[in-house]
Amino acid sequence: MLTRTSGLSLTDQLSARFAERIRTRLLAPGARLPSVRECAKQQGVSPHTVVAAYDQLLAQGLIEARRQRGFFVRDVAPAQASSAPESAGASPVAADASSLIRGMFHRQSDKPQPGMGVFPPDWMESTFMPAAVRRVTSGPMLQELSLQYGDPAGDLALRQSLSQKLMGINVPASPDQIITTVGATHALDIVSRTLLRAGDPVMVEEPGWAIEFARLESLGMRILPVPRRADGPDLEVMARYCEAGEGHRPKLFVSVSVLHNPTGYSLAPGSAHRLLQLASQHDFHIVEDDTYSHLAPDHATRLCALDGLQRTIYVSGFAKILAPNWRIGYMAAPPQLFGRLLETKLMATLTTPALFERALAWCIDQGQLRRHCERIRARLDAARGRTVKLALAAGCSFASEPAGLFGWVETGVDTDAMTQRMLDEGFLIAPGSLFHARRPPSTLMRVNFATGQDAAFWKTFARVRGELLAR
Amino acid sequence: MLTRTSGLSLTDQLSARFAERIRTRLLAPGARLPSVRECAKQQGVSPHTVVAAYDQLLAQGLIEARRQRGFFVRDVAPAQASSAPESAGASPVAADASSLIRGMFHRQSDKPQPGMGVFPPDWMESTFMPAAVRRVTSGPMLQELSLQYGDPAGDLALRQSLSQKLMGINVPASPDQIITTVGATHALDIVSRTLLRAGDPVMVEEPGWAIEFARLESLGMRILPVPRRADGPDLEVMARYCEAGEGHRPKLFVSVSVLHNPTGYSLAPGSAHRLLQLASQHDFHIVEDDTYSHLAPDHATRLCALDGLQRTIYVSGFAKILAPNWRIGYMAAPPQLFGRLLETKLMATLTTPALFERALAWCIDQGQLRRHCERIRARLDAARGRTVKLALAAGCSFASEPAGLFGWVETGVDTDAMTQRMLDEGFLIAPGSLFHARRPPSTLMRVNFATGQDAAFWKTFARVRGELLAR
Repeated sequence: MLTRTSGLSLTDQLSARFAERIRTRLLAPGARLPSVRECAKQQGVSPHTVVAAYDQLLAQGLIEARRQRGFFVRDVAPAQASSAPESAGASPVAADASSLIRGMFHRQSDKPQPGMGVFPPDWMESTFMPAAVRRVTSGPMLQELSLQYGDPAGDLALRQSLSQKLMGINVPASPDQIITTVGATHALDIVSRTLLRAGDPVMVEEPGWAIEFARLESLGMRILPVPRRADGPDLEVMARYCEAGEGHRPKLFVSVSVLHNPTGYSLAPGSAHRLLQLASQHDFHIVEDDTYSHLAPDHATRLCALDGLQRTIYVSGFAKILAPNWRIGYMAAPPQLFGRLLETKLMATLTTPALFERALAWCIDQGQLRRHCERIRARLDAARGRTVKLALAAGCSFASEPAGLFGWVETGVDTDAMTQRMLDEGFLIAPGSLFHARRPPSTLMRVNFATGQDAAFWKTFARVRGELLAR
Repeated sequence: MLTRTSGLSLTDQLSARFAERIRTRLLAPGARLPSVRECAKQQGVSPHTVVAAYDQLLAQGLIEARRQRGFFVRDVAPAQASSAPESAGASPVAADASSLIRGMFHRQSDKPQPGMGVFPPDWMESTFMPAAVRRVTSGPMLQELSLQYGDPAGDLALRQSLSQKLMGINVPASPDQIITTVGATHALDIVSRTLLRAGDPVMVEEPGWAIEFARLESLGMRILPVPRRADGPDLEVMARYCEAGEGHRPKLFVSVSVLHNPTGYSLAPGSAHRLLQLASQHDFHIVEDDTYSHLAPDHATRLCALDGLQRTIYVSGFAKILAPNWRIGYMAAPPQLFGRLLETKLMATLTTPALFERALAWCIDQGQLRRHCERIRARLDAARGRTVKLALAAGCSFASEPAGLFGWVETGVDTDAMTQRMLDEGFLIAPGSLFHARRPPSTLMRVNFATGQDAAFWKTFARVRGELLAR
């Protein structure tokens, strides 16, 4: 909040705050700033202070005035596809997808951040992780696994552990079908680069994960959004895409089947079967992003289990459950795609760090990871109950049955505007627009059940929501 | 070699050997197999054995017979751009670029491999590397640097060390201009993805690094080869590319200025100055790949030092000198490109493992890395002298003044054919065709001075060379 006791004037504080948000893309290029009157009211300062602050931003070249329309963030860095220029300005103040991602790394404040997609670090603390690291770094393994590039497919010990682990969810993958990656993100990147070329159409669930949209756009792919329903993707929409003329048919569908982000939906068996039939009929591949695997029951319906990795590629990782910064993800692929996927990995990063891979293999083999996941799931179940109560008390409802890590929350107010107002209070939230390829205004937001149990957050939220409703 | 004492028949041994090479792309799709008579002579078996072996390969669908022309490797996996289909068949038996890369990881045999681009692991062994790892993994740093995603730009301690290190070679980069990556390969990948789109023309030195060609092709870029001379790239050729009509002008030049791979050339100051003038005149960026930085003197001419990171991006890494599997590389970029490059990193891998980054920072700050480089350089100087003598004695000459890690060797025979024959003897060499975008036949090969000191290698090489000359 702005303070009169700061060494900086109110004008300087206000312009610095906007400058910081523009720099970090929490105010995206093309976004409209609040009107002078509106801003003055929100911040509890005089209109004169706001005018002076906007003047400073104009002088710094960060914003521009458009006749009769107000002040807009200047598009300083020439727009990359990832900044989705065509949608800029669609909402009054749009946070860029990458801002949410950066928020995962730089805390806005010491407050809990229910907009983020990760567990609090103290949830993931364990004694077995340091023990595993000691095992691989205290003996000759350290030099052995450091001084050579290592196996391009990834550490064999880990690929063997993963093969066993996948058997537990009925995905039949030999170690020779598994490639380790720099997190699940890297795996998805490798799959899209291998199977698609610039201009190719690709089907993606909507709502869906902002980074996935941004990456496919930056690679020049044509995104075909498929509405995600409670039981799975909308197969009629997919069928229509597939019936497009030769050269326009999608080659790939990217799907989070289990505990879908942001809705928490899980694929129903019947939908899975029909989806695989459609894929076979129209000859497209499916990459199944099972990032939330560790929070789901083993018996959840997975496309790769039904299909037996014929035209499906399985992707998952350990950032959500064990050690985000180890950056270990992997894919399991049909044998006929393995060589091409491996080549893309080589061209992108050569190999991946094997020491952590070996440490992770030990955690899996000893059953430590499985027990850890059970503990986290129990803790998350309790947190979910509390967060749901707080959200309902704050005037929200749930657009889907609460499950897994995320709640998909109906707020009744524009969540892009809400994002900017909550930032003033030190909270970064995840507005609904972020989960759509074209970023339309939305009244939905995604809430992390683990970090959403904070009464102070919801108290602030309810107050800001009330102010927005009263406008 | 084929043996009569093996449990397998000669036919089975021969077909298994070809099958393995086809699988690993040491025989690339479209490559022609030796004629039956030629193969029989080379392997010391009867033509009947060869016919039977080729029949097995036909039955396995690995090769195909073309009327009047002989036997060719089938294009089993639909060609990706990376397999350069237009050039396939240009040479009788072409090793794929990725085979050389894979050779960096899987030793063909226990013999020294002068075709590879790395130092032997025992050269890089040190006591300070394990000490640095103990520092970061034995205290609270382990959990701290594992349980959060970490800074998207990379560990701040390392970026500060790198900023200091770059000052030593007159490249002015603050920590805020530095992004760490999964090796230099990842940095080059991020730069090309950020600055180019599919179809964009990009200038690359020729001869040059095969992985760079393959990656740019797989991203759909149009490669414009620029002949590399002793003092720098051919500026006249570059000027002609730049004078192409609007929309065809190259946006990027990829260059290894210092100890260029494979020639060992280093950029002359005058060429550097004129190159930067050309870049300014035609408004293109230059990415300077300084992978061999640690083997070169600090005073070597670097484009980024002259330009002060205005339109140049500096890329380097530590795989060549410290620990290939740690996969630590980095780039230093102009401030106005920083945000876009960081976004591409986020979309490709989110963050990078910070524990090794922190350990590396310690190695740099303590001066350990600098002293280690000095030792390696002295050892390499001695090895270079010995390898040059052996190569000359084997009938070769040097196409460029021997310097750095690689010799660019004129053999007088077709080095694609030589590659296949040397594989029979357990040696993987690096034929000249690999260093050209279109893979024309070549009599050159690249030799690693560190692993090229082996008299047995050169004895075998001289014998095979004699046989090829006698054909």
